[in-house]
Amino acid sequence: MAPASQLTNGAGVTAGNSITSRMASVYSEVQNSRLDHPLALPSVFRSPFKIVDGPASSAAGNPDEIAKLFPSLFGQPSAMLVAGESYESGSALKIGVVLSGGQAPGGHNVISGIFDYLQERCKGSTMYGFRGGPAGIMKGKYVVLTPDFIYPYRNQGGFDMICSGRDKIETPEQFKQAEDIAVKLELDGLVVIGGDDSNTNACLLAEYFRSKNLKTRVIGCPKTIDGDLKCKEVPTSFGFDTACKIYAEQIGNVMVDARSTGKYYHFVRLMGRAASHITLECALQTHPNITLIGEEVASKKLTLKNVTDYIADVICKRAGLGYNYGVIFIPEGLIDFIPEVQQLIAELNEILASGTVDESGMWKQRLVPESLELFEILPLAIQDQLMLERDPHGNVQVAKIETEKMLIQMVESELEKRKKYAYHFKGQSHFFGYEGRCGLPSNFDSCYCYALGYGAGALLQGGKSGLISSVGNLGARVEEWSVGGTPLTSLMDVERRHGKFKPVIKKAMVELDGAPFKKFASMREEWALQNRYISPGPIQFVGAEADKANHTLLLELGVVA
Amino acid sequence: MAPASQLTNGAGVTAGNSITSRMASVYSEVQNSRLDHPLALPSVFRSPFKIVDGPASSAAGNPDEIAKLFPSLFGQPSAMLVAGESYESGSALKIGVVLSGGQAPGGHNVISGIFDYLQERCKGSTMYGFRGGPAGIMKGKYVVLTPDFIYPYRNQGGFDMICSGRDKIETPEQFKQAEDIAVKLELDGLVVIGGDDSNTNACLLAEYFRSKNLKTRVIGCPKTIDGDLKCKEVPTSFGFDTACKIYAEQIGNVMVDARSTGKYYHFVRLMGRAASHITLECALQTHPNITLIGEEVASKKLTLKNVTDYIADVICKRAGLGYNYGVIFIPEGLIDFIPEVQQLIAELNEILASGTVDESGMWKQRLVPESLELFEILPLAIQDQLMLERDPHGNVQVAKIETEKMLIQMVESELEKRKKYAYHFKGQSHFFGYEGRCGLPSNFDSCYCYALGYGAGALLQGGKSGLISSVGNLGARVEEWSVGGTPLTSLMDVERRHGKFKPVIKKAMVELDGAPFKKFASMREEWALQNRYISPGPIQFVGAEADKANHTLLLELGVVA
Repeated sequence: MAPASQLTNGAGVTAGNSITSRMASVYSEVQNSRLDHPLALPSVFRSPFKIVDGPASSAAGNPDEIAKLFPSLFGQPSAMLVAGESYESGSALKIGVVLSGGQAPGGHNVISGIFDYLQERCKGSTMYGFRGGPAGIMKGKYVVLTPDFIYPYRNQGGFDMICSGRDKIETPEQFKQAEDIAVKLELDGLVVIGGDDSNTNACLLAEYFRSKNLKTRVIGCPKTIDGDLKCKEVPTSFGFDTACKIYAEQIGNVMVDARSTGKYYHFVRLMGRAASHITLECALQTHPNITLIGEEVASKKLTLKNVTDYIADVICKRAGLGYNYGVIFIPEGLIDFIPEVQQLIAELNEILASGTVDESGMWKQRLVPESLELFEILPLAIQDQLMLERDPHGNVQVAKIETEKMLIQMVESELEKRKKYAYHFKGQSHFFGYEGRCGLPSNFDSCYCYALGYGAGALLQGGKSGLISSVGNLGARVEEWSVGGTPLTSLMDVERRHGKFKPVIKKAMVELDGAPFKKFASMREEWALQNRYISPGPIQFVGAEADKANHTLLLELGVVA
Repeated sequence: MAPASQLTNGAGVTAGNSITSRMASVYSEVQNSRLDHPLALPSVFRSPFKIVDGPASSAAGNPDEIAKLFPSLFGQPSAMLVAGESYESGSALKIGVVLSGGQAPGGHNVISGIFDYLQERCKGSTMYGFRGGPAGIMKGKYVVLTPDFIYPYRNQGGFDMICSGRDKIETPEQFKQAEDIAVKLELDGLVVIGGDDSNTNACLLAEYFRSKNLKTRVIGCPKTIDGDLKCKEVPTSFGFDTACKIYAEQIGNVMVDARSTGKYYHFVRLMGRAASHITLECALQTHPNITLIGEEVASKKLTLKNVTDYIADVICKRAGLGYNYGVIFIPEGLIDFIPEVQQLIAELNEILASGTVDESGMWKQRLVPESLELFEILPLAIQDQLMLERDPHGNVQVAKIETEKMLIQMVESELEKRKKYAYHFKGQSHFFGYEGRCGLPSNFDSCYCYALGYGAGALLQGGKSGLISSVGNLGARVEEWSVGGTPLTSLMDVERRHGKFKPVIKKAMVELDGAPFKKFASMREEWALQNRYISPGPIQFVGAEADKANHTLLLELGVVA
């Protein structure tokens, strides 16, 4: 067998003639059963349809600056697919697709959705998969996607069909490289599957292509397990549903374990750096005793001491009820939300960037008193992690800091001072992260992604560019889902970086007055002291409830209360 | 709602009149769907049956010593249930049940199996659940089990119906306490659900009760996710199947992640301290690049350096093929299998027990040169873990040592010396443990446990004592499973402890000439360099393959090759 890496060497390998790493694999029964799982489609795709434009759009903030940055795209209307005679059989198209950033369950279904749309509606089309993320565009590394190539990835997790990457198309040279490949392949369109940054990049590329009068249109798709790329028209990002369900399965098991042994406090750190959506959703699914939500910690300007005290308070109260066990959720990015820790990290970044750190600890004198005090109360292992790990930009890698272990130690110290409570405390740490990014997509994510892909295909066929594929009405049956596109510029604001305005799609943070947080807040006191644990169990692909979407989405849509 | 802890306070609470923690819970859809899941039973239970004795038994080793330790029980025959007119409707019995040791999926089904057997065959029986493990027997803490009490736990994970504990009945006073409660409750029988130690204890109790001419018989049930309590008549311990499937789901996801990102080596430590069955089974299910099996490491007398070199060799070879990612399995108890590490730990235990350890490190002079050398090459964090954590017996808590992180660091150092290879190495550590102990039992474990419970009921009704419930022919349909009991003394050998012979059921280690290991060994070179990853996906409870048992069992039974 040829190693899969061969595929990455030459440009323009026709995948049908080669062997993919998946094809060389034996599949499990469950993987196999998913391959031919029939996917429902929004009914608009089941008959002739046309694209109807909505009213002109603006921006999420600073419309004047966005208008300057996107002179050809700014203000364009959103698009909606409605039944009607318009595209009965389109001409053949040449379409590229790229996966950008971290994995999220369902990415393969977006690709197969685009592919199937083209096969069905634009016969004779060619589809190119750029390999390894945006770098594949810039370096001209791609495969021609064929039915045989795509088949083994249908309803499967991971991004390995064409792999992903974190590069961005940024410099004039890089935009030129993208132009060159678009011209060489005569691309009618490009679909960028990614998070907030990647979709911003997609919009810049759309603007660039239009400014150059290229025929290549660009459509984005909302991907991230973190759930922080969403707005009214794009109710959720794909992958969030599956990842949360995978974490909730593990958490549910740990909860049963906690109740059975009666002697552990499980501190569970959950992936999702910037926003706490995953943590909140897992809480709604499983009912832990304590859930820290980064956005609330920031809004209340809590200190690490406040957080520690809160946990210790609940532990003491529970001890009074006879419970010396529990489950505590910590969002991965927690310390990013604590102002005093942000301050400390900023100072450490400067100190480390500007010179060596002396063994004797004299360097600590450069910390402001509050930061020094905080640094000194941190467990040694965390001090080490704060000092050692820096990313290429000189920033501490917050995701690598074992916040769950830090909190266990800090809570232990705090409890030491509260001997009068007859508590018994034993902390057990967990981090649930990588397991959730590449799982088999849930039925919801499988269908949602497939519809996003179909929609992207339709938008490209309709000549649209600079839109993000938008599938709505997600609380209803798949057949009733709406399909359209939202102007990426309408999601944008600007940030000033290095003296220049940069367009950004603002991350959607947990809203403290939103339905999911309010639901959680109304329940958490009961969850803290009584044990309302729910164990969702492993994701089931068959059965009455297999298609149900996550709580966050259903609460935000108002489908459940 | 009354807190569940109330139940633990008074002895003899009739559960039907109270509220359990489960009853106060909301169940997930999957939990609910499991409650009424119909369980097949071995067909022997579907008609009148009788118990047939086999030939006289001996012991696993030192039969003379075992005979002295178990004068009333030694040599008794095994028992087999066969169709025939014997027990049509038995008289009412009073039966106790206790869960002992760590959780394993399916424990609740053993209890419901006993309960349902009694309801069906011995109408009017009473069943007592001793709470919190053997301590519940000694302290007389129990609940009367009723249909309503048991119902919410059917096919559910965890041990929280009556909880478990790690106490043992050891001293003459403790045996007397057990006698007192047996007499007080007029117990006809007691079922001990536990691992090797607990079943040894069960047999001692059976012997004691018989020597006292009590009517109370004792039957054991084989429980442990570690899979190391098994023999010809007891082909597997319950919980192993589910736990491995839960770990394999997570591992499969991590494998897809590894392949998608192409830049991480995932070091996965797997629960299972004494034997490497879990690691081996997960390897058979998922095909990792490297699998360390403790028994092989011990048999080959490998050093930590050997293990590190082996991993580094594979990483370099894979780099040559263009793969800078992979998945590596490490059994939790690995370092227990490395002779030089055992030696070091033994020396550290003595040094720590005998006095203080000076800051300056002078204490290290007390290590023999080889141990000192080994200690010095260990990563600092591991040195700390070896020095700090001691269990109540003064032993290092091997399970708490993050072997996966240790190996990442040691492999990193080794690779540093091999710069000529164009490798790229980034280690990512995982520990899969608690998530697997309390999951919803697989269909196999659900049925196996239910049959074990039914069988235990039948053995007690048949007047048997000192047997372990034995369900065989597990490769066939449930209806064709055999049911019987194996003399616990026949599983025993003696160990000399504190100058006395102690009976022990020898842990079943991974056999290097057994079918599962041989299958793995025949495949591992292919798995190492090519990527044969399988992603089993989440456990499905419905579907053609939902009832399939694990590879280890089927290979050992010769059902698959």
